[in-house]
Amino acid sequence: MSFEPLLQYISQYVQLTEDEQQLFLSKIRLGKYLKGQYVVQNGNVCRYESFVLKGCLKTFYIDNEGQEHIVMFAIENWWTADLGSFLTQTPACYNILCLENCELAQITYADLEALYLAIPKLERFFRIIIQKAYIAAQQRIVNNFSMAAKDRYVQFRKQYPEIDQRVPQYMIASYLGITKEFLSKIRARLARRKSSRVN
Amino acid sequence: MSFEPLLQYISQYVQLTEDEQQLFLSKIRLGKYLKGQYVVQNGNVCRYESFVLKGCLKTFYIDNEGQEHIVMFAIENWWTADLGSFLTQTPACYNILCLENCELAQITYADLEALYLAIPKLERFFRIIIQKAYIAAQQRIVNNFSMAAKDRYVQFRKQYPEIDQRVPQYMIASYLGITKEFLSKIRARLARRKSSRVN
Repeated sequence: MSFEPLLQYISQYVQLTEDEQQLFLSKIRLGKYLKGQYVVQNGNVCRYESFVLKGCLKTFYIDNEGQEHIVMFAIENWWTADLGSFLTQTPACYNILCLENCELAQITYADLEALYLAIPKLERFFRIIIQKAYIAAQQRIVNNFSMAAKDRYVQFRKQYPEIDQRVPQYMIASYLGITKEFLSKIRARLARRKSSRVN
Repeated sequence: MSFEPLLQYISQYVQLTEDEQQLFLSKIRLGKYLKGQYVVQNGNVCRYESFVLKGCLKTFYIDNEGQEHIVMFAIENWWTADLGSFLTQTPACYNILCLENCELAQITYADLEALYLAIPKLERFFRIIIQKAYIAAQQRIVNNFSMAAKDRYVQFRKQYPEIDQRVPQYMIASYLGITKEFLSKIRARLARRKSSRVN
């Protein structure tokens, strides 16, 4: 697997010279994980910030009652990490698990910090992508408070159609903060509405 | 009001030279707002990213039923903006209102973009503070799903004791996504528990 998708992704935001690309890639490791394998485990330090070349992952949290809550998914061209753990190099609160066989372009904290100094353009790159992630997180907080579960699901499906197709429904329910039974009802209602519109 | 608190805040993350400080401050405007005044109104473009020198503000969203949902508060040494609107220079979804008379150090999008080029260290500065905001936002999503309302309030009070004191309780209830009646009950229960522990 080449790192071309990562370079293409970066080039949307900043232009690296040939030398900078080489330096950057020299710090990137290819991580291959099997379906069901953990990239990050709660209690261990999150060693890498990972760019998804191939596959699908979930980030989740287990509460005191042992219930799983899905924080985010990641598919190709997304970044994933327990960012709090990665940036402070302290034990992770979250788990990151592969839902499919995955290939990840990974960088350690020390290497990333060194790269920021060597290639200041990367500060800009990561500033911009983290800003986007922050805006999406804030929007999700508001949606969780202000939108009915059905509307949140409709929006999720529109925003992330690929994830809706690749991920089991009970995980999407967890991400939306509803039960899987309730999500089934919503889906059934939406399907009925669609078929009555077609007929 | 001097901009000293802003320079001090920045110096925690990056070291600006005297010249860079002067250039940076030359782009900063002092915004004075009265209690009840809007810094950002839903539908208008968010013109400034604002650093709070003095005062307290709320960012909120009005849903289709006309109900208000508080997204965040801001007090001294915090940044506030409708970041989605500011960064894309499109109409704001949120409103930002002064809960006290406020003095804000403000910068426009065009000036900030020019400063990033003139002082690349500012890329680093804003990358770091947005990372922190993102981690907090993600934590809040998980807490909303996984923690009981009482525990969320206890955590809020511990994390932001000053906001708990300066902001009316019904606004904190809105921030936590619960009714003000329910928050009153939680507070009464906590007070009873505290007094029974004291006696």
